Order: sequence, then C-alpha cells, then structure tokens
Amino acid sequence: MTKIPYKIYLTEEEMPKSWYNLRADMKNKPAPLLNPGTLQPVTEADLAPVFCEELIKQELDDRTAYVKIPDEIYNFYKMFRPSPLVRAYCLEKTLDTPAEIYYKFEGNNTSGSHKLNSAIAQAYYAKKQGLKGVTTETGAGQWGTALSMACAYFGLDCKVFMVKVSYEQKPFRREVMRTYGADVTPSPSMETQIGQKILAEFPGTTGSLGCAISEAVEKAVTSQGYRYVLGSVLNQVLLHQSVIGLETEAALKKYGIEPDMIIGCAGGGSNLGGLIAPFMRDKIQGKKDLRIIAVEPASCPSFTRGKFAYDFADTGKVCPLAKMYTLGSGFIPAPNHAGGLRYHGMSTVLSQLYHDGLMEAVSVPQREVFDAATKFARTEGILPAPESAHAIKVAMDEAIKCRETGEKKVIVFGLTGTGYFDLVAYKKFNDGELDDYIPTDEDLAKGFAGLPKLDL
Amino acid sequence: MTKIPYKIYLTEEEMPKSWYNLRADMKNKPAPLLNPGTLQPVTEADLAPVFCEELIKQELDDRTAYVKIPDEIYNFYKMFRPSPLVRAYCLEKTLDTPAEIYYKFEGNNTSGSHKLNSAIAQAYYAKKQGLKGVTTETGAGQWGTALSMACAYFGLDCKVFMVKVSYEQKPFRREVMRTYGADVTPSPSMETQIGQKILAEFPGTTGSLGCAISEAVEKAVTSQGYRYVLGSVLNQVLLHQSVIGLETEAALKKYGIEPDMIIGCAGGGSNLGGLIAPFMRDKIQGKKDLRIIAVEPASCPSFTRGKFAYDFADTGKVCPLAKMYTLGSGFIPAPNHAGGLRYHGMSTVLSQLYHDGLMEAVSVPQREVFDAATKFARTEGILPAPESAHAIKVAMDEAIKCRETGEKKVIVFGLTGTGYFDLVAYKKFNDGELDDYIPTDEDLAKGFAGLPKLDL
Repeated sequence: MTKIPYKIYLTEEEMPKSWYNLRADMKNKPAPLLNPGTLQPVTEADLAPVFCEELIKQELDDRTAYVKIPDEIYNFYKMFRPSPLVRAYCLEKTLDTPAEIYYKFEGNNTSGSHKLNSAIAQAYYAKKQGLKGVTTETGAGQWGTALSMACAYFGLDCKVFMVKVSYEQKPFRREVMRTYGADVTPSPSMETQIGQKILAEFPGTTGSLGCAISEAVEKAVTSQGYRYVLGSVLNQVLLHQSVIGLETEAALKKYGIEPDMIIGCAGGGSNLGGLIAPFMRDKIQGKKDLRIIAVEPASCPSFTRGKFAYDFADTGKVCPLAKMYTLGSGFIPAPNHAGGLRYHGMSTVLSQLYHDGLMEAVSVPQREVFDAATKFARTEGILPAPESAHAIKVAMDEAIKCRETGEKKVIVFGLTGTGYFDLVAYKKFNDGELDDYIPTDEDLAKGFAGLPKLDL
Repeated sequence: MTKIPYKIYLTEEEMPKSWYNLRADMKNKPAPLLNPGTLQPVTEADLAPVFCEELIKQELDDRTAYVKIPDEIYNFYKMFRPSPLVRAYCLEKTLDTPAEIYYKFEGNNTSGSHKLNSAIAQAYYAKKQGLKGVTTETGAGQWGTALSMACAYFGLDCKVFMVKVSYEQKPFRREVMRTYGADVTPSPSMETQIGQKILAEFPGTTGSLGCAISEAVEKAVTSQGYRYVLGSVLNQVLLHQSVIGLETEAALKKYGIEPDMIIGCAGGGSNLGGLIAPFMRDKIQGKKDLRIIAVEPASCPSFTRGKFAYDFADTGKVCPLAKMYTLGSGFIPAPNHAGGLRYHGMSTVLSQLYHDGLMEAVSVPQREVFDAATKFARTEGILPAPESAHAIKVAMDEAIKCRETGEKKVIVFGLTGTGYFDLVAYKKFNDGELDDYIPTDEDLAKGFAGLPKLDL
C-alpha cells in the first residue's frame, strides 16, 4: 500500500470546481425561513433589502445539487486552497492509538480559519451586484477578518460589528481588519437603534452574535448601496463551505482511505456543514455508513440541550425565523466562555439532520478543550483556535477509545483555524483562571421562555 | 508550456534529503571565528561549554557540502514542509508588470516563520547529546516560538531571553512560547551578571539582540546540562536553513523557471543565507548568473553602511569574534524600529559573499516597508511579518522597474513569515505614528568606535 504522506495536497486541477448543496439530497428538507411579520415562508422579495440577489437565490434553492464556483472566486481560492488533509502521525504516536487520525486544516490563511471560503464568495456577489459595501458581525473575529480580506480584494467597503467580549479579548483582531481596510465597531453599539436599546436594557452586556447580527442588519438596510452578509448558519454559507468537505473527500479517495467518523466543531454550523456535506450525501443515499459528530461547548449547547423549534435568528428579532436547535434568541453565554461557538441557534440544515438521527452531537467543557488544544499544539506543532479544539478533544477521546478496544478506526476531524488571536484565552488557561461554565436548567429555561409562540 | 499553479508544492519524496553547506563551495571561505581571549581561531574545545557537540562540528566544517538530514528532523519537517513557492499572480496584476513574481512562503507554521527549520535541528542535537535544556534569545519572537515548539516536541527545557522592546510590543508572543512550555524573560534582566551590568549602565534600554545573546550564553554556561542555541548569524543555522533554498530550487526546476534575481531580507542572515544557498553555488561555479539582493532596514544597515571587520557577536563580549559587516556590538537600533532585523552584525558567510561582490544589498526605511506590506496583504491575502516585508518592498520595486522597461524578469523573494504578532507595529503604521529612523553618520561612528582594535 502507498505510504500516506503527512500532508495530502490536491493539485490545482483536483480542486472541486463546484460547491455541493446538501439540501438537494436531503429527504426531509430543512423547514423554510419565515417572514417574522407574516409567518409565511420568506420570498426573494422579502430578503432583497437585506441580502445580495445571487446569495438569496442560493439561500432559497434546495433543489440544485451542484453550483459552479465562479472563476473570480476560484482564482482567489487558489491563493490559499487546496488546504492540506493532514495525517496526525505524531498525535497517533503520542496517544499510542491504533486509530488513524486525519485533520482537514483550514488555518493556513490570514483570516486564520475556513471563513474565507464563504467571505470571498459573498464579497464577489456583492461586487457583481454593483454594491458599495457590506455589513456583518463577527464573534471570535475570524469571519470579520475573512470578510475584510475579501472586501479588500474586490474593493468593497466593509463594516464589522464585533461582539464586545471578543473586541476586548482580541485587540489585534481589530487591527488586522483595519489593515485590510475595514471599519470595526464593538457590539452592542450606539450606532444602531437596536444597539442603543440593548445597551439601555443591559448596560454591562459583553454582547452576543445574535445582537451583533441585529446591528449589522439594521446598518445594511438603512445605508444606501449596502447589504448584510453572514459567516455562518445560513444555507448559502454551508454551500460555499462544502469546498472543505469536497476537498477532504477527494484527498481521502486519492489514497483509498475510508473514514469511520467525521468530527467537527459547531457554533452556527459553517465548518461542520461544509466538512460533512459529501459524506452525509453518501450516508443519506445509503452508499456509505459512518458516524458524523458535532462538537459544541458545554456553555452554549444548542444541539445537546436546545429545542428544535422556530426561533429568531437574532436578538433584535429583525431577521427571519428559522426552525433549528436553539437555546432561545435571548440566550447569551457567560462572558468567561472563550472565543466563538457562542451562537444561540444552529444551521437549519444541520438541525434537520440531527433531528433525523443522521448525526450525533457531544458537548465538552472548556478546560478539557484547552487541555486538548495544548497537547495537540505540542505534538502536531499547530496552535489551534479554541473553536477547532472542540473537535480535537473529541477526536482524541475517540482515538483513546480505540487504544482501549484495539480498533483501527479512521478518524477525520476539521481543524478550522489557528489560535494566534486567542492568546488571552490561552493565558487564562495557562494561569489556571479559565472556568468551566455550564448553564443550569434554570438558565436554559430563561432562554426557552423567549421562544416565539407560533400558531403554524 | 505548462500553466504554473498559484502554489508550487513539492511532494514529500521531492523534499531535500540533505542540507547544503555553501561554505564548501566558496572560493574565499568566511574568516574563522576567534577566541576572544587568545584571538586564535576557535576550536571545538573552546565552544564545547556553549554549544551542542554536533552543532559545533557543523559550525566549524567548511568542507562538507551536503549533510544528511536526520530522520527525526525530517519527520518533523514533514509536519510543516514542503513550504509553497507561490506565484504572485494577483500582485503582478495589481502592479501591472510583465515580471513574474514568486515567493517562497515560510509562514505556514505556528512559529510564523522559517525559524522552525533550524530550531528543530538544534533541539534534536541537544536531545541526542542528553542535555536537559537549552537557552536562547529572541528578538521579534519568531525564533523563541520556533525553539519552544521544537523543545516541546523533544521534551527539552527551553529558557528564552526576549529583547525587551519585543517583549512589550508582543505580549502574546510570550504566551505562545509559554503554551509550548518555555520560560520567557525580558532582556536585559537581573537574572544574569551581564544583564545586571547593562541595566546599571543603561537603565531605560529596550534591549538588543546582542545583549540578549550575552544573557542566554551566560545562563547556559552557568547551568548544569544546558547549552546555548542561536537562531541566526551562525554557519550551522545557514546550513539548516538551506532547506528553503533547496526546495525553492526544486520547485523552480519542476516548472522550468529560471530566476533572474533572488531577494531576501537580512537581519543576521538566517533566511537569506538559506534561500540563496544553491543559487549562489551555481553563481560561484559559473553555471548561472543571477542577481542576489539582501534587503535590510535603513535603521540597522549592517551591509550598506557597516564595516567589514572582526567584531564581537554580542554586547557582553563573551562570544567569539566574527569577521563580518557590523555596526559595532554596541550599536542598538532606535526603539521605534519595529520587529526584528535589529542585529548589529551579519552572518560571516554572507559578509564574505558581499565583500566578494557576489551579492548586492539595499536598505529601506520602515514606512515604505509597511506600505508595501499593506499593499501585499490586500492583494495576495497574506499579512506579512515586517521583516519579510523588506523583501516584498524591493521585489515590488523591481517589478515596477520591469513595468517601465518592459522586461519580463523572473523575481523570486523569500516571504519569511507572517505578521500576526506584529499588530502593534501595524497599528502604529495605520495610525500614522510609525517613524523612519535613519542613523546619522555620527550615530554610526559611536558604534564603530567600539570595534575591537586587533593586531592580527
């Protein structure tokens, strides 16, 4: 058998030419987004003031399986893709496991994560539509950085609302975005009506993605020539991120590797949805059976402790309603929760798949996550983003189980990004000051109390 | 003709199996290091208290051209190498130049630079010798991070003296090193006699590489089971870094590309010496003629305004004397000079080559460097280290010259690393607060006044 290299790179010719839209192959389609005013499925016209035209089409299209990647996007992809599928030889040795561990590493670009895959696509469609700029929110800062890079490339204005806790924990994230020409505001801010309202109600809040989304949407719809773009949750984002899964699939095939499980971290679902797309297709079509595992933080456990219900996508309740696993749009994770994966809800695609029993979900407390991150860094040489370390933790757990059972499972996980801008969180962990916050049932009940009472 | 991809990756099998020792092919060998006590060429015995045994052999051997890379190092290399040789299609388009621009990108690893190439080698030889740990200095922090990673991998203690200005400008660099288990002290410190002496003499000093070297050497020779390791200047470092040049050569050959010039930034010479090694060999042997250009900061202009003379390698004058282009071991660049490339001297290999007219040198002021860095980031999507941006600046200048003359030159430059930990400097530049400090002739005269008066 061919020796598998440490890093499997596809050639440029082997890179996927199209994105893959998993919805086209789902037997139970995700429930449609609802117009918050009429409670009817949203139309293109409903979304036109908020989103770019072509992206609305992608958002609503659950029939077309493959969408050709436009040349302009494809050429940008070639600057940082294909990303390597890495065989974690050193980690396997350290864990003394018979398992084979692979990770798809999306951190080798300046945004530090997979977010650039969708950012460049969204910026492209905004440019094509002749817009002046876009607004967005960012949590950990990866999406904001990615969008800044994409907007710089296409000469678009970029206005970023950054969740306040990240803005404060990550002073340098702001500076990267600024270097790429973006304008960054901590959220909640006084720049929007919804921001003013939230600050009046909760003066000390450290913000949330749901709140920053509301501000960015308000800013877009009240500014001439601007639209709003989002880095996760949406169907269009999962579509663009399918490039991760398609490359992973091609790299595995190149060496005849059959995965037993695919593991990814899940906040809003952008990475996980992209990573698993072709594997889930095969699973739905009965071609291959394998485990698909979502990993989320114990402090924001949408899948494992949330409800599958229609909910607002944002705190300000200006966005459409989505049927998803949710903790309630009023849920804000404790400020000591480091980094991203703070969103109260989850992609409708992933929510439906989880509801249908096609994937598993696990939640992990953050100290164990940082412990796994540190072990991984010292062994594999990559300092992971805290978000990505959720997947590392579960991949390591699964590899250790194999050591105990002697099984030679093939474990594939998504290493979404690097932790270079998460050193405040690493410092807290190194200093023993990082807490494990796990919400009580009473905490969650408060979030659930805010779920809309719908008569559908 | 084959279309050249955006990124040329060698396969694992195509990676160089040996390092290349350029000294073996130099007609005029670099002058030997001198024992500061006897003024005689240093012997293995002289160096044994300071350096690892095998590294001393490499340091002194100017005859062996190829040194096999040990398997343990080679396997570690495979975690982050081969590094890509990138065709800067987007930059060429932005500059509207007929030139072809390529860069060898060494930033895709957690140390953020090429430094890991030598760090892992030096840690390996320390481990092989049965040492407990190593000491070192770091300026910009890239070398310290690289060594921390290498020591974590081999289970060695790592004690880093970090130039105070970088320690303060880069708070997160320290935390990365700590995450990899290293102990980091700002230099000058009270932990060593030389540090105490320097602090007494210059209480407000922001430190220098020369001073941090003195502290690290003192700490090594006064601690049981420790040796000192250095990330630049030394012959052994250039040997390990030759992997950059050898990979570049192989990648160019793979697509039949003939470079007209090779451009690299130069502080102590680790990157430049490695990058140019095989090209300089061909030039010396008359097989190929091409321009080789060193780029240094106008604020620390060893090549362009220094003297070719024997000088102390460190401020404390405890290290051997080296014949090199130097500003005097007492020269300390202004504190507003951002990042690395702060060393007063230069590799003896590169100094000899420059003296013999085999390479050119250019110095550039730092605002132009940051301006080039920002343009590059927005075009090619990579936020460069300030050090690397020196090479970018001159590569862009050369490409613009081609636009004017219509020449289709092939420009290759070394992009040594990323700027993720240099955001304080970028912020200053973005805020218009970065100065161009260029030393006057009087400033330089003070440094030259400290050159040793030798009667050789």
